[in-house]
Amino acid sequence: MERAIQTFIGCDNGYEESRTVIFGAPFDSTTSFRPGARFAPPVMRSESWGLETYSPYLDRDLSDIAVFDLGDLELPFGDPRPALKAVEDTAERIIADGKRPCMIGGEHLLTLGAVRAAAKKYGELRIIQFDAHTDLRQEYLGQELSHACVMRRCFDILGAGRIFQAGIRSGEKSEFQFADAGNTSLCRFNLSKLADFAAEIGENPVYVTIDLDVMDPSVFSGTGTPEPGGVSFNELRESLSVISGLNVVGMDLCELAPSLDASGASTAAACKILRELLLSV
Amino acid sequence: MERAIQTFIGCDNGYEESRTVIFGAPFDSTTSFRPGARFAPPVMRSESWGLETYSPYLDRDLSDIAVFDLGDLELPFGDPRPALKAVEDTAERIIADGKRPCMIGGEHLLTLGAVRAAAKKYGELRIIQFDAHTDLRQEYLGQELSHACVMRRCFDILGAGRIFQAGIRSGEKSEFQFADAGNTSLCRFNLSKLADFAAEIGENPVYVTIDLDVMDPSVFSGTGTPEPGGVSFNELRESLSVISGLNVVGMDLCELAPSLDASGASTAAACKILRELLLSV
Amino acid sequence: MERAIQTFIGCDNGYEESRTVIFGAPFDSTTSFRPGARFAPPVMRSESWGLETYSPYLDRDLSDIAVFDLGDLELPFGDPRPALKAVEDTAERIIADGKRPCMIGGEHLLTLGAVRAAAKKYGELRIIQFDAHTDLRQEYLGQELSHACVMRRCFDILGAGRIFQAGIRSGEKSEFQFADAGNTSLCRFNLSKLADFAAEIGENPVYVTIDLDVMDPSVFSGTGTPEPGGVSFNELRESLSVISGLNVVGMDLCELAPSLDASGASTAAACKILRELLLSV
Amino acid sequence: MERAIQTFIGCDNGYEESRTVIFGAPFDSTTSFRPGARFAPPVMRSESWGLETYSPYLDRDLSDIAVFDLGDLELPFGDPRPALKAVEDTAERIIADGKRPCMIGGEHLLTLGAVRAAAKKYGELRIIQFDAHTDLRQEYLGQELSHACVMRRCFDILGAGRIFQAGIRSGEKSEFQFADAGNTSLCRFNLSKLADFAAEIGENPVYVTIDLDVMDPSVFSGTGTPEPGGVSFNELRESLSVISGLNVVGMDLCELAPSLDASGASTAAACKILRELLLSV
Amino acid sequence: MERAIQTFIGCDNGYEESRTVIFGAPFDSTTSFRPGARFAPPVMRSESWGLETYSPYLDRDLSDIAVFDLGDLELPFGDPRPALKAVEDTAERIIADGKRPCMIGGEHLLTLGAVRAAAKKYGELRIIQFDAHTDLRQEYLGQELSHACVMRRCFDILGAGRIFQAGIRSGEKSEFQFADAGNTSLCRFNLSKLADFAAEIGENPVYVTIDLDVMDPSVFSGTGTPEPGGVSFNELRESLSVISGLNVVGMDLCELAPSLDASGASTAAACKILRELLLSV
Amino acid sequence: MERAIQTFIGCDNGYEESRTVIFGAPFDSTTSFRPGARFAPPVMRSESWGLETYSPYLDRDLSDIAVFDLGDLELPFGDPRPALKAVEDTAERIIADGKRPCMIGGEHLLTLGAVRAAAKKYGELRIIQFDAHTDLRQEYLGQELSHACVMRRCFDILGAGRIFQAGIRSGEKSEFQFADAGNTSLCRFNLSKLADFAAEIGENPVYVTIDLDVMDPSVFSGTGTPEPGGVSFNELRESLSVISGLNVVGMDLCELAPSLDASGASTAAACKILRELLLSV
Repeated sequence: MERAIQTFIGCDNGYEESRTVIFGAPFDSTTSFRPGARFAPPVMRSESWGLETYSPYLDRDLSDIAVFDLGDLELPFGDPRPALKAVEDTAERIIADGKRPCMIGGEHLLTLGAVRAAAKKYGELRIIQFDAHTDLRQEYLGQELSHACVMRRCFDILGAGRIFQAGIRSGEKSEFQFADAGNTSLCRFNLSKLADFAAEIGENPVYVTIDLDVMDPSVFSGTGTPEPGGVSFNELRESLSVISGLNVVGMDLCELAPSLDASGASTAAACKILRELLLSV
Repeated sequence: MERAIQTFIGCDNGYEESRTVIFGAPFDSTTSFRPGARFAPPVMRSESWGLETYSPYLDRDLSDIAVFDLGDLELPFGDPRPALKAVEDTAERIIADGKRPCMIGGEHLLTLGAVRAAAKKYGELRIIQFDAHTDLRQEYLGQELSHACVMRRCFDILGAGRIFQAGIRSGEKSEFQFADAGNTSLCRFNLSKLADFAAEIGENPVYVTIDLDVMDPSVFSGTGTPEPGGVSFNELRESLSVISGLNVVGMDLCELAPSLDASGASTAAACKILRELLLSV
Repeated sequence: MERAIQTFIGCDNGYEESRTVIFGAPFDSTTSFRPGARFAPPVMRSESWGLETYSPYLDRDLSDIAVFDLGDLELPFGDPRPALKAVEDTAERIIADGKRPCMIGGEHLLTLGAVRAAAKKYGELRIIQFDAHTDLRQEYLGQELSHACVMRRCFDILGAGRIFQAGIRSGEKSEFQFADAGNTSLCRFNLSKLADFAAEIGENPVYVTIDLDVMDPSVFSGTGTPEPGGVSFNELRESLSVISGLNVVGMDLCELAPSLDASGASTAAACKILRELLLSV
Repeated sequence: MERAIQTFIGCDNGYEESRTVIFGAPFDSTTSFRPGARFAPPVMRSESWGLETYSPYLDRDLSDIAVFDLGDLELPFGDPRPALKAVEDTAERIIADGKRPCMIGGEHLLTLGAVRAAAKKYGELRIIQFDAHTDLRQEYLGQELSHACVMRRCFDILGAGRIFQAGIRSGEKSEFQFADAGNTSLCRFNLSKLADFAAEIGENPVYVTIDLDVMDPSVFSGTGTPEPGGVSFNELRESLSVISGLNVVGMDLCELAPSLDASGASTAAACKILRELLLSV
Repeated sequence: MERAIQTFIGCDNGYEESRTVIFGAPFDSTTSFRPGARFAPPVMRSESWGLETYSPYLDRDLSDIAVFDLGDLELPFGDPRPALKAVEDTAERIIADGKRPCMIGGEHLLTLGAVRAAAKKYGELRIIQFDAHTDLRQEYLGQELSHACVMRRCFDILGAGRIFQAGIRSGEKSEFQFADAGNTSLCRFNLSKLADFAAEIGENPVYVTIDLDVMDPSVFSGTGTPEPGGVSFNELRESLSVISGLNVVGMDLCELAPSLDASGASTAAACKILRELLLSV
Repeated sequence: MERAIQTFIGCDNGYEESRTVIFGAPFDSTTSFRPGARFAPPVMRSESWGLETYSPYLDRDLSDIAVFDLGDLELPFGDPRPALKAVEDTAERIIADGKRPCMIGGEHLLTLGAVRAAAKKYGELRIIQFDAHTDLRQEYLGQELSHACVMRRCFDILGAGRIFQAGIRSGEKSEFQFADAGNTSLCRFNLSKLADFAAEIGENPVYVTIDLDVMDPSVFSGTGTPEPGGVSFNELRESLSVISGLNVVGMDLCELAPSLDASGASTAAACKILRELLLSV
């Protein structure tokens, strides 16, 4: 008898045939407020079965494309360095095989691991970040490896002008000043500059990181640090059409914390964004 | 001493004098994702006491109209046929007395019972369906009596061109194709075609079924399958003015699952929609 | 060794140097539906640490102004008169010291205590009320000291034409009639008349009371009586710019019930509104 | 058509034929810690349908006795005096009709209303109190009408030697001293002295009040002030056999707070204790 | 790259080499009170990783035995017949391969499917049932296929004297009478007769069904119908030593409802009982 | 005006006069299952106000002794080394002042910081550990600084024969073997050897660490890894009388996770154990 396997809905293709490879990264040790993002990957897989594979928005179906779901990495908690190394190694192997990693976090710091892998292969890498927070601190309570610093660490790798931030509505004054000094391109409060960002990125390889808290808590309250005043589900969903024309070499969704999502609505939103993302790139 | 009775707020009239008859149908056995809609009728009754009988939107008061609240049917769980039969019988008696049934679900499949009763009396019956989902599957995991098939079963009774679906944003590709083939009138993603629907229905008798998940999970997360990207409370509320001019012969609200509504906000929205509906028809 | 103290974030100034004085009023005994507002003050303090002191909306920082956080009053439950007396006494002392009280409720009835104190000092006092409810009943189940009557009690003190109500979408018919008879200025459903209100108030001293349920339950479900159809977080936040030019002599936020806010999103919204309010006046 | 009525399971007899009359008293305004007991009566009624009418412990069935369920009193929140008056009036009428009141609280202070009514009729009244707390304070934060003072207020009516307290494990030092000075009979930590209490009470009329928090939080966590170290469900249930032989003229169960009982286990325990109590007296 | 698979902890052996085969049966449509048992199988798998494979009680380790975890069956909701058929077919295949099925429910009615399969192979089949409820009704609200009737349906197959019920503390009077008439062996309130049951069963093949609600709600509140007065975790765990010497040909655990288990304690108890059961037979 | 300060109830003495110093350590980054212990210190402080300062068990009152509550340390999340250093420094200063630290965790790994400080001062230090888990792993998923390794790290400092473990019911086989090889004294499943442990410790200085999960989940479910089969509240409470005669030089309570304690019962148990502990040493 054969074992029944659970993947993200419609992502039951083999590794060889797949262009995109999903993997879960259940880690949230540097989360400074309310942890729980560690539980997102398995919960998203099982809740995705409440979702159709067909998108009426795009008139496309997950059964038309090939995605492999690798399952979850086994990551130790506490010191984030081993977890970052495991994410980097996994992403590197996927990229080496000519495929595109799609990480389901976990906390946002993990993006650093995937970006390290992508930057090794793609010298001209850009990042599009959907987020409520700048994440540009040099350190947070003395720690340089913190979710609050992840984009600053990516900046350390990529340098100025490579990071495009959208939906940002929270951060320290110095973080906004750092962005405004030309280090990153930052779109405050909404996603209105995305088309400009896409034009500027052009043919360059781009890594797309979606901190799901870019959405308003009304539709996405299940996250460690909900920030009122965010974008709607439809605004985020529609913005993916901009990404659609870019050379996306890696992507992730982060910061769903299912234990803070009693109704399941945030998990449903995360699953649907992932479906639309997979169908868009 | 007399027993204190609890009805939906302001619906304490006698049966004889009432034009509309509320009854609860606590059943959710075919719910495929997260059950709980069975608990909606008693919870809506008790939570309705946090609501005023007066609508500032309509400047009308429940004390100005006559509604009888019959209480809840006793329905067995499991096989849905006895529950459908009980709903059909109750609706039939109400209709036979020249009144209008208003069912509080319960899962959406129960609408089939009430539609059966209404179709027997009204040969030209139409249905307006507010919903996130098409509910047009021929069968679901081998079952033809499933919440996911309810509108297809109504179609089996009424035939093509009689069902008007609004707010739809989820379904299998084949369901949308079935609708688009002229079998139903389907308004994707919003309620924009409602006025056209009303014009097409004209003087014909119409049954109004509101799957409350037509509302966005931001305002109505307390339901088994929340679907982001829905209409707002005010959009749904305002759409009732369209119904206001129609010959409404029956109605229902379905799919509130109070156990998924920790804050009570979804229940409050359901109660208010019911008040506005009662004051509109 | 010195004890670590917890204040609302960025409000760690001394009393003498501060222009505004925060105090918590943990009382909710007259709440008629779901109690829990009593727990708001300590929860808002601890959750405020997930918030930045910097507002990117205003480009201002709590570190630029001086606010003292007095902690919470000790209030007995049951009969509301001792609690109202304690609030009045505290507000009176703060006002006597040339400062501005900012109360964190607790239920809305407590506003009466602060208004009593302000009205003693400021003969020409006006009130701006953000609220879903009129709160204009003469009595509620025989009680004149009820959250549902608080604005009527303030009216008893100030007289006609002094109370400006915005965002109102719920109440008995007679309450709306009382307002429309010229007793208060009432803006139905939204905040559109706020600029007119401000113009009418002019230089007169004004007390600002924010019943947080003025916000839609989508973004603020953690309250005893959620009322769908409210204003968004951004609408409320932006409206504070109107207040910014007025002579605000006291203020409060009421009706956050943290136990109904499983995700923490309502508390985050309350904290952010308080930050913006403190930075606006 | 006839309205379906909901009573506590098996308590659907008429008033005239019934020896015991249940009524709900939804009030908790003096609760000093976590409110919510106000919601117990309707929740107990609807959850009682998960219970059988038959007790295998007693081999007796609710269908063998006659109980009338009056429904809930409408009580205003805040000042407790009107609520106490309503309870007193209701109990007095029931007693005047030769019946026995059985109140479902609500907070424990309400017992005072029922005891006032019983003491008027029965000069030699005794009280058996099952409780975690002494409830013997003279005042609490300045209030004499507080749940923490209810037994002291009963003492004011009955005098020394009339109150029998069992299961007590919490209180101020002075409360224990007050009891030990001969004012009440107090059994610390368990129910071991109940048989002695019963012997001492003999033929005298007795009012039985059960603050459900006498049970250990392991089996009854759904209460405002859980006190570890309490008695088990079976210990409380078995103790009712002692009461069985007494002249019980009134009784109540208090302090279930359903909103703190996520699993429903506390509510189930409360319902079962009520069934056993009704079958025992 | 290979997909990471999730099995119940320590049950990652191949089918061929395994003596016991676990499968999940996510179905709860006849649950009459609070549904949710459908979610138990995947939740138990993921939560089992908080458990050690080593039992200090038995000084045995899951790594010492061979168990295959087949994953979950896909079962339609509503009419229970297709689900029962799928369970029966799966159990039949496992038994035909000389192995022992171990079903993770789901609701208790599913036991009927597995018992049908076992009874076909083993003419002398006995059942040991751990349960709070008799489950001996002939029908429930007109339905013969209901969780409340499951043992009566097994009785229809096996006949009198073959079913041994332990821990029973709830049921209708007629159910107890049916048992006491010699139809089943019933041990009221505790597990004290288990050794006698084992002696009577002797070498005969036996199916062990554990309705986890046999445990007291203090340790197992996460179930649809919690029944106070049950056995402790240690009593249930220790009772498995009695089973240890029997010829167990099939087994199941039912009625964990994870959505009613906010703390995870009930799920932890279920997982540990499953570990001990697997190590005992 | 003076700021109202919140301490653990009855622990409002000055530092100089106090023999015991409480401090909170809000950290849980190495928690491998469900995090949340970081929130325990402030929640225990505010919930302690539902507790009396008087213990009827000991007939002693917190007002009779002197305890200083230092508040919470500010600890960064992620890498545990800075948090351990901060705990060690704080404990060292308290010990240097001739006082006794009493840490409120946070996760159990933090005990290592306090033990490091105590071991520096007291060469003959012993540890009494109340726990469900051995915590004796050499490493966990490659990490040596993990909650699952904390007692092994203490063993590295103190050597064989110095650690006394009670209530242990979970661990890997190798951990029990390590203990049984004479490295620690381990009492399986209960607290029955505590008196022997105390006799063996004699006059030596002892650090008492209470992982609150030693209690059964029935009374303490609010913890990351609930382990059924534990000791009752009264068993743990009574065991403190054994400690009462020892030379206790430091102590802690760990692993309450308030977000997993919906009813508040676990927090109440933790607060009461802390009160009894403070009154016992």
